[in-house]
Amino acid sequence: MADVPTLVEQAREGRPRAVARLISLVEGASPQLREVMAALAPLTGGAYVVGLTGSPGVGKSTSTSGLVSAYRRAGKRVGVLAVDPSSPFSGGALLGDRVRMSDHASDPGVYIRSMATRGHLGGLAWAAPQAIRVLDAAGCDVILVETVGVGQSEVEIASQADTSVVLLAPGMGDGIQAAKAGILEIGDVYVVNKADRDGADATARELNHMLGLGESRGPGDWRPPIVKTVAARGEGLDEVVEALEKHRAWMEERGVLSERRVARAAREVETIAVTALRERIGDLHGDRRLDALAERIVAGDLDPYAAADELVAGIAEGITEG
Amino acid sequence: MADVPTLVEQAREGRPRAVARLISLVEGASPQLREVMAALAPLTGGAYVVGLTGSPGVGKSTSTSGLVSAYRRAGKRVGVLAVDPSSPFSGGALLGDRVRMSDHASDPGVYIRSMATRGHLGGLAWAAPQAIRVLDAAGCDVILVETVGVGQSEVEIASQADTSVVLLAPGMGDGIQAAKAGILEIGDVYVVNKADRDGADATARELNHMLGLGESRGPGDWRPPIVKTVAARGEGLDEVVEALEKHRAWMEERGVLSERRVARAAREVETIAVTALRERIGDLHGDRRLDALAERIVAGDLDPYAAADELVAGIAEGITEG
Repeated sequence: MADVPTLVEQAREGRPRAVARLISLVEGASPQLREVMAALAPLTGGAYVVGLTGSPGVGKSTSTSGLVSAYRRAGKRVGVLAVDPSSPFSGGALLGDRVRMSDHASDPGVYIRSMATRGHLGGLAWAAPQAIRVLDAAGCDVILVETVGVGQSEVEIASQADTSVVLLAPGMGDGIQAAKAGILEIGDVYVVNKADRDGADATARELNHMLGLGESRGPGDWRPPIVKTVAARGEGLDEVVEALEKHRAWMEERGVLSERRVARAAREVETIAVTALRERIGDLHGDRRLDALAERIVAGDLDPYAAADELVAGIAEGITEG
Repeated sequence: MADVPTLVEQAREGRPRAVARLISLVEGASPQLREVMAALAPLTGGAYVVGLTGSPGVGKSTSTSGLVSAYRRAGKRVGVLAVDPSSPFSGGALLGDRVRMSDHASDPGVYIRSMATRGHLGGLAWAAPQAIRVLDAAGCDVILVETVGVGQSEVEIASQADTSVVLLAPGMGDGIQAAKAGILEIGDVYVVNKADRDGADATARELNHMLGLGESRGPGDWRPPIVKTVAARGEGLDEVVEALEKHRAWMEERGVLSERRVARAAREVETIAVTALRERIGDLHGDRRLDALAERIVAGDLDPYAAADELVAGIAEGITEG
């Protein structure tokens, strides 16, 4: 096994196996996790992170693939992080999609990674930011994070992007319904995919109405654009890239980009800190201290709050001494 | 507003308004929460806590009401904690059920409390044990905790009982399906309600098979009984009480009851400690410390893990100093 500095150097050179190895190290909470993260820190910040979310069936993978092509035409290095269990990257989709994505499989300027591992520690919401850091440090200009637009953790992941793209498709009432459930609040750019189908205009109109895009906004406010695409034929994706670059420029101009990144980093630190404290408490299982406190509660000698105070104080002492 | 010692004294005398006030204080995380919990501690441990869980439609509320009657006939003081959003106690069910439960509304030996308040702090799983403590301290001999048998938090609440009763009804394939999803692991006593309906025997047989009750067990092992009831006509509930008392006696004999209570208290302390630590981290929002760390991460001067270490150390110092 290569040492961490070598892996980082190889990842910088664009070697996919080194990138893969580093992501495995950070998502698996390996002993080297901290070493990797420390080594990556000075190398990060160059990538533009785009989140793509939408209900199953709207054509997320096809759109992601199309965006990869569009960015590649512009000479950018692209990372794809698929945190969608139904994504072809995660192995769960139609052969057609998989074949389509494999267009990029042999392109050294594209790094594709799926994340289907749920359930460890904080789950995906915990592992995704670390994988993003690896792709960032490995020199990706753009990182596309593909998530299913359902569930709290997916929305959290989308919130880790610099720009969030929400995808819809015509004739999917549930798409709009799902959108109502919170997705509408997170989109910086909206895409109505499968725009060659009946109802595409109606979907765009409904979306326009729901977003209140007809209403007047402040002169410097961001007005989320609605872009129509037929991702399966590669149509409209350059327009999506254009909308993304406009949003990025708007954020940079207004200082919004660094605000978002600071807020994101703060959440990340918070998650890691909570996990660390939780683990310290978890370590007490089987520890006599917690059992002794519990026994005193059952005996009526102590209430659970006083016991928790003792526990927290013990943990705090352990941290300050250690 | 009465002071805490007076409220506790009044609750001990069985005054329902004092009990209600105390539960409100503990579930609302009021400033007096700690004072109340400390005052209750020496008064707890007398109640036998029975969890009742099952899919909607199996007749949980009717069964709970029937069990209240059965325990009242035995001269016991009974507390009911309904953490079921669809429960008549929570106001969400049919008038017929509500009328049926109101049989107990004027009985001073019965205390009924609904908990439909979700979302604050740790939610129901956090508030339920505290409400159980109030009912325990108030002198209830038996506390029936009614939950819907779906979702993680309901299963957690059921795990806070001394004995868990899982209810099923014939002709509800979904009941068995839900059971498969985890309920089967938590039942100490199984009840097939609506046993006058077609398929009751088949449901009991299927359950018997799924539980592996035909298989041989160790001589001292608990063999969960399956009791058939028609709760709407009050049939079979004395048999359920009998099964509960058998399970209680078995647990006391084997030391299982105190083991379960110690494990439960340990979990409770852990939950409170995690919540307290989480709050300390949450307090840092808007605090310059967290923002400053986040800015250093975005600048590439620090990685999120090193930042989390600093944050945790700061919190620990605050605790040991405070």
